Amino acid sequence: MPPPYPFADVAAALDATVRGDGTRIVARLMHPLEADRPDDLIFVMDPALAARLDKSPVRAAILAEGMEPPAGALEVWASVPRPRFALAKLLDLFERRPHAPAGVHPTAVIEEGAELGEEVSIGALAYVGPHARIGRNTIVLPQAYVGADAHVGTDCLIYPGARVGERVEIGDRVIIHHNASLGSDGFSYVTPEQASFEAAKGMADEVQITIQGLRRIASIGTVRIGDDVEIGACSAIDRSNIGATVIGRGTKIDNHCQIGHNVRIGEDCLLSGQVGLAGTVRVGNRVVMAGQVGIADHLTIGDDAVIGAGSGLWKNVEPRQVVAGYPALPKSRFLRQEMDIARLPRLLKDVAALKKLVAEMRQKQDE
Amino acid sequence: MPPPYPFADVAAALDATVRGDGTRIVARLMHPLEADRPDDLIFVMDPALAARLDKSPVRAAILAEGMEPPAGALEVWASVPRPRFALAKLLDLFERRPHAPAGVHPTAVIEEGAELGEEVSIGALAYVGPHARIGRNTIVLPQAYVGADAHVGTDCLIYPGARVGERVEIGDRVIIHHNASLGSDGFSYVTPEQASFEAAKGMADEVQITIQGLRRIASIGTVRIGDDVEIGACSAIDRSNIGATVIGRGTKIDNHCQIGHNVRIGEDCLLSGQVGLAGTVRVGNRVVMAGQVGIADHLTIGDDAVIGAGSGLWKNVEPRQVVAGYPALPKSRFLRQEMDIARLPRLLKDVAALKKLVAEMRQKQDE
Amino acid sequence: MPPPYPFADVAAALDATVRGDGTRIVARLMHPLEADRPDDLIFVMDPALAARLDKSPVRAAILAEGMEPPAGALEVWASVPRPRFALAKLLDLFERRPHAPAGVHPTAVIEEGAELGEEVSIGALAYVGPHARIGRNTIVLPQAYVGADAHVGTDCLIYPGARVGERVEIGDRVIIHHNASLGSDGFSYVTPEQASFEAAKGMADEVQITIQGLRRIASIGTVRIGDDVEIGACSAIDRSNIGATVIGRGTKIDNHCQIGHNVRIGEDCLLSGQVGLAGTVRVGNRVVMAGQVGIADHLTIGDDAVIGAGSGLWKNVEPRQVVAGYPALPKSRFLRQEMDIARLPRLLKDVAALKKLVAEMRQKQDE
Repeated sequence: MPPPYPFADVAAALDATVRGDGTRIVARLMHPLEADRPDDLIFVMDPALAARLDKSPVRAAILAEGMEPPAGALEVWASVPRPRFALAKLLDLFERRPHAPAGVHPTAVIEEGAELGEEVSIGALAYVGPHARIGRNTIVLPQAYVGADAHVGTDCLIYPGARVGERVEIGDRVIIHHNASLGSDGFSYVTPEQASFEAAKGMADEVQITIQGLRRIASIGTVRIGDDVEIGACSAIDRSNIGATVIGRGTKIDNHCQIGHNVRIGEDCLLSGQVGLAGTVRVGNRVVMAGQVGIADHLTIGDDAVIGAGSGLWKNVEPRQVVAGYPALPKSRFLRQEMDIARLPRLLKDVAALKKLVAEMRQKQDE
Repeated sequence: MPPPYPFADVAAALDATVRGDGTRIVARLMHPLEADRPDDLIFVMDPALAARLDKSPVRAAILAEGMEPPAGALEVWASVPRPRFALAKLLDLFERRPHAPAGVHPTAVIEEGAELGEEVSIGALAYVGPHARIGRNTIVLPQAYVGADAHVGTDCLIYPGARVGERVEIGDRVIIHHNASLGSDGFSYVTPEQASFEAAKGMADEVQITIQGLRRIASIGTVRIGDDVEIGACSAIDRSNIGATVIGRGTKIDNHCQIGHNVRIGEDCLLSGQVGLAGTVRVGNRVVMAGQVGIADHLTIGDDAVIGAGSGLWKNVEPRQVVAGYPALPKSRFLRQEMDIARLPRLLKDVAALKKLVAEMRQKQDE
Repeated sequence: MPPPYPFADVAAALDATVRGDGTRIVARLMHPLEADRPDDLIFVMDPALAARLDKSPVRAAILAEGMEPPAGALEVWASVPRPRFALAKLLDLFERRPHAPAGVHPTAVIEEGAELGEEVSIGALAYVGPHARIGRNTIVLPQAYVGADAHVGTDCLIYPGARVGERVEIGDRVIIHHNASLGSDGFSYVTPEQASFEAAKGMADEVQITIQGLRRIASIGTVRIGDDVEIGACSAIDRSNIGATVIGRGTKIDNHCQIGHNVRIGEDCLLSGQVGLAGTVRVGNRVVMAGQVGIADHLTIGDDAVIGAGSGLWKNVEPRQVVAGYPALPKSRFLRQEMDIARLPRLLKDVAALKKLVAEMRQKQDE
């Protein structure tokens, strides 16, 4: 049931106690600085904002535990522990689904043999290829693409410009954002004889061989996406050479991520913006990668590992390990290394002074 | 008025003095190495190219201040100070607007309640959602998307494949390039209890807790783009959880930039290619970020700061500060640190020699 | 000719010797762990998998040289040297072209003056602009865009959502993947007086000047793509200010790459995922860049150079040079530097001990 709600219903959804008039109606959830209507509700995590609520036209608020509104500032409020978790529940009450009338828009193209489940919405100018299957309640928004023989599960949300390549398999409740690409060919080439990029793996500063007769390695495999996965805008997941590139159940992938061919990612992982995984990387379950992480091909990342922002990985990561840096190191070593480097100017001075002192002492000793 | 022009008109637009026959007609502005017609005009910033103009079929040129064509090489020319600024004016004279006939293409979809201003062009296969508003003179090119309730100002240019999400607000004279995404959901999740990525913020090399009961934090907010903003191809700007992600007037964003939810960027900033801003970053006015910069969530970057290419920011940046490195440092410290590190081989040798020498001296002293 | 094949034909294509019954029919090329039909063929590079083939339902396999299946495990097999090269040939036998019926889909838009070669396929909801030319056998998949006056060669493959900007020129046998952008405007701005980003090029930690009167430098040039080029999903290649941004014959560009205006890349280069080249970079032939490499504007990279993953280049690279790091160094120096830095804790201790010892010795000497 969409808003408006009596405040008491909102508080109940958050397991929070109502302070004040729970019958008061709230219609919109607004940013504290933009709320301007008496039926607005705000969520306050910043004590400074809470302290100024008597200057605000707002009458109803949810506050992070430990804060109190100035006396008389609000007509009704509630306090929540672990505020970001409460925020998730609160936002669900006010979220609006995208405009998506059930049925097939007359300008959409549904090719022969495609199967659409009940209550499916196929938006304007969308394309569903031959023998593709779209599960019940799934929404394909305008201008999205589902290729031939692809399978999309139930209750999915496929945003404008998202491309679900041919034969790609997608589970239930998957969200694919604007202009994401699933199932492009892997980036995979080979030469008849050894090439420069193979020779460059050692210590040499110069390669003596070159690239000759570069040949494409085709990608006849597919991409397989588990249930409850979310894939960000402009992200790309390449198909496998043979078999499937796999994203496990519950894993969330932010915008501009690059998932190479043959990669396998486990369940409930979080990959932040602009992360890049080269081909055949293996990622365990519940792994967290902050923004702009890069992982070289064929590496393995253990369960529950946490990879710091901007890290470049050239080695495997153990389960539960926390790493950071380029090249990545165990986190404490990375932090200590930064401190050691910061001590270099002093160290250089100390050694210069020592050299001088020892030279003088030696001269004295020799006299 | 489009080309051709008499050379004198071009020189006048650049505030430059005509040398030679100003009535000569120039029809195309070409690269010096590709010009081959007598009515071609070239722009020369490279002294080596200027010196060889007598070998070129070109008869008309604009030269950077301080250069002279070989005697008799040209029929007409002019000299400009600050050549890149002159180039900007010159290119404006020769730019061609994209093919965009006024009116609505018969294959475009305009949903009920959408409002189109005068002289708007809506290209083939474009989509304008219910109750969206498009301002006067704005061009929506083929296959672009403007979602329900979005507002686009006047004189905007929206390229093929650009996605303007539902309720997104865009000012006047905004340019949105190929396949950019405005208004995808933020990347925001939470667990009922503390999760590994929260525990990993300290020094520990291992996390003892995991991710359980991962829950999505919805994005009910929007994106607000000021006047005169430009957004590059394949860039993505996520909507806010509550309120708006804001891009200030005059700010220019290059290709493949990732702007997280709740970010606020000021006016006249320049963000180069592949820059990534995590959630809730605050950026002042006139901030410059070179390519591939990454900024961690909740940081603040002061007015007029300049961030070097590839920098990773884990701390706030002061107004006017110049920083570089991963993690980023004040620029002089970053450069000195590079030099200090380069002195390490010598330092290691010095200390080894010192140790040996001191040991010998000590032995002698003890004798 | 598509599958099924007698095994002997597959072996012949790989120049490999048949061991066993070459008349056996193979219909599908499968991942070793997913093969489950008697007419499946597998390709095995992993000795552990080869050793377990007697537990598999598979009857036919190609094995990397040096491996043998357990006795009686297979009915037919062959052994290949340089297995990745053999894999490329093998995959070509089993690759499936995308669904693309010849002719123009009734929902595609072909503007006036566009010229389509023989056997061209223009997919549903695709757009071909006025006076664009599409060569023989080229496939433009659904929802792709070819702008006005663009030229696309023969036998090209343009995937859904790819944008070929106006006047862009593309050679033969070029592949452009999902949502790639060719011919967006360059990211190029200038101010009437010197701006902060120019002043920041020295050592100063603070800029004293700001950005005023920011003005756009238009891009009236184009993009020119050689034969046999491949461009990954969500990659972007900007048009030149004047003249062309050029990608040489045979060069392969992975997903999410950013190629700035005026860049010129030679032939047979490999650019991995998320590589970023700023404006006016020059890249020679057969250059290899691993993932997330960044190259500052106006740099030159020599033929056959190899750039390690995540490197940030602020200086030119010589032909055949191997570099890595941020900022990038010759590879052996980069690796030694990592080792030197790892020795810092020991070095700091040594110097502290030396200081103490020398102080004691000096005291003794002075007594």
